[in-house]
Amino acid sequence: MKEIKVFSNILEANDRLAEQNRKNLAEKKVTALNLIGSPGCGKTTLLENTLKIIAERDEIKAAVIEGDIATSRDAERLRKFDIPIVQINTEGACHLDAGMVCSVMDDLPLDEIDLLFIENVGNLVCPADFDLGERGKVVVISVTEGEDKPQKYPEIFLNSACVTVNKTDLLPYLDIDIEKLYNDIDTVRKGLPRYAVSAKTGEGCDAWVDWLESLCNYAPS
Amino acid sequence: MKEIKVFSNILEANDRLAEQNRKNLAEKKVTALNLIGSPGCGKTTLLENTLKIIAERDEIKAAVIEGDIATSRDAERLRKFDIPIVQINTEGACHLDAGMVCSVMDDLPLDEIDLLFIENVGNLVCPADFDLGERGKVVVISVTEGEDKPQKYPEIFLNSACVTVNKTDLLPYLDIDIEKLYNDIDTVRKGLPRYAVSAKTGEGCDAWVDWLESLCNYAPS
Repeated sequence: MKEIKVFSNILEANDRLAEQNRKNLAEKKVTALNLIGSPGCGKTTLLENTLKIIAERDEIKAAVIEGDIATSRDAERLRKFDIPIVQINTEGACHLDAGMVCSVMDDLPLDEIDLLFIENVGNLVCPADFDLGERGKVVVISVTEGEDKPQKYPEIFLNSACVTVNKTDLLPYLDIDIEKLYNDIDTVRKGLPRYAVSAKTGEGCDAWVDWLESLCNYAPS
Repeated sequence: MKEIKVFSNILEANDRLAEQNRKNLAEKKVTALNLIGSPGCGKTTLLENTLKIIAERDEIKAAVIEGDIATSRDAERLRKFDIPIVQINTEGACHLDAGMVCSVMDDLPLDEIDLLFIENVGNLVCPADFDLGERGKVVVISVTEGEDKPQKYPEIFLNSACVTVNKTDLLPYLDIDIEKLYNDIDTVRKGLPRYAVSAKTGEGCDAWVDWLESLCNYAPS
C-alpha cells in the first residue's frame, strides 16, 4: 500500500528553508544573527546603540530585519541609520520562521552588507525552536527580569552563541546580583559568552561590538 | 466516500476542556484568574504581595497553580503561605493549556477556596490564545518594558479582564511616561481596568486586591 504523508513536520520544513537561507548568506559572506528576548528587554535599544558604534567605526556594513507581531515601530526607530531595514509583521505568530526570512531576502542588498541583525518577535520561548538560517542566536535579557531566567527558560540559553545582559544602569535600584545571574547561566551552559551592557548609556557596548566584528572577520569554510 | 478527520483542531480540543474546567470551577464557586506576562515582569512577586494582603484581610481563601517550562522555583517562593499550591511543568511548551489545568483540578480542595490564581508560563504572546476555563485573564506588564507593548502585542490586551502595571518603584529611573503607556492601552482596548502597582513595595496593591475580592463576591448566573 502506498504510504500517504498526511502530516508534514513544521520544523522539518522550516529547517529546509533555513539551510537555504544559510547557504545564500554564506555565499554573500553575510553573518546573520537572530536576536531573541522578551518584550521590553531592550533588543531595539541595543540595536540602536550597536548601529551607532558600527557607523562610528565604519569597518563593517550592517542591515536589519525587524520581526514584530504588529506595527513597524521598531523599524521606524532605526530609520535614522543609513542602512537597509526590512520589517516583517507576523500577524499573530509568536516567532519568525525561515520562510518569512527567505521571503524578504531579495529585498536586502546582500552583496553590500557584512552583518545582518534579525530582531525576532519579543518572546523568550518559541523563537528558540526556529532556525532562520542565522550564524548564531543571541539571547538578550534585562537585569530587571531577575536572576533565575536561564534555568527557567533553558532552551534559548542552550541554543545561543552569546547572551547580552542589558539595562545594567538599573542595577543600583534592583535587588539583583549579576554574579548570581551568571551562575544561573553557567548551570545551563557553562562558559556561554556574556556581555553586560546598558543599551541606554552605551556602557559595555564596545566589547559586544568587538565580538560582532570578530564574527564578520571569520570566514566559514 | 466516508470523510476521515485527519487533523484535529488543537484550539477546539482545548476549548472543550476549558469549558469543562469553567463548569467545574463555577459549581464550586471558585473564581479562577489566568495571569499572563513576560518572563521577569513580576508575576510571582505580585502573587507574593497579593497573597500576603489576602491573608491579612482574611476574607477569601486563595490557591495557586504555577505554570513553568522548568523548575518549581515559583511554587517554592509561595510555600511560606499556608495555601494549596500545585506546580505544572510544561516541559518545553510555551503556554499552559486547558488539559494541563484539568489534570491537576483534583489536587486542589475546590470546596475550600474562593480564588484560584493560575500563573502562566512567562510569555506575552502564546498564552493569550489558550482558554484554561478561567473567569478572566490578567495581563501583567512591567514599566521597564516600555510604553509601546499594548500596540505591539495587542491580543493579550484584547483578551484580558484587567492589566496590572508592575514595578512602579522603578519609574524615577526610567524614561517612561505611564500616561503614554495608558494611552497605548486605550488605543487597543479603551477603558480596560488597570492597576499600577509595585509588587516589591506593595504600593497600589490594595486597590488590585479590592478588585480581586469584588470578583469573588460576584455570583455568576
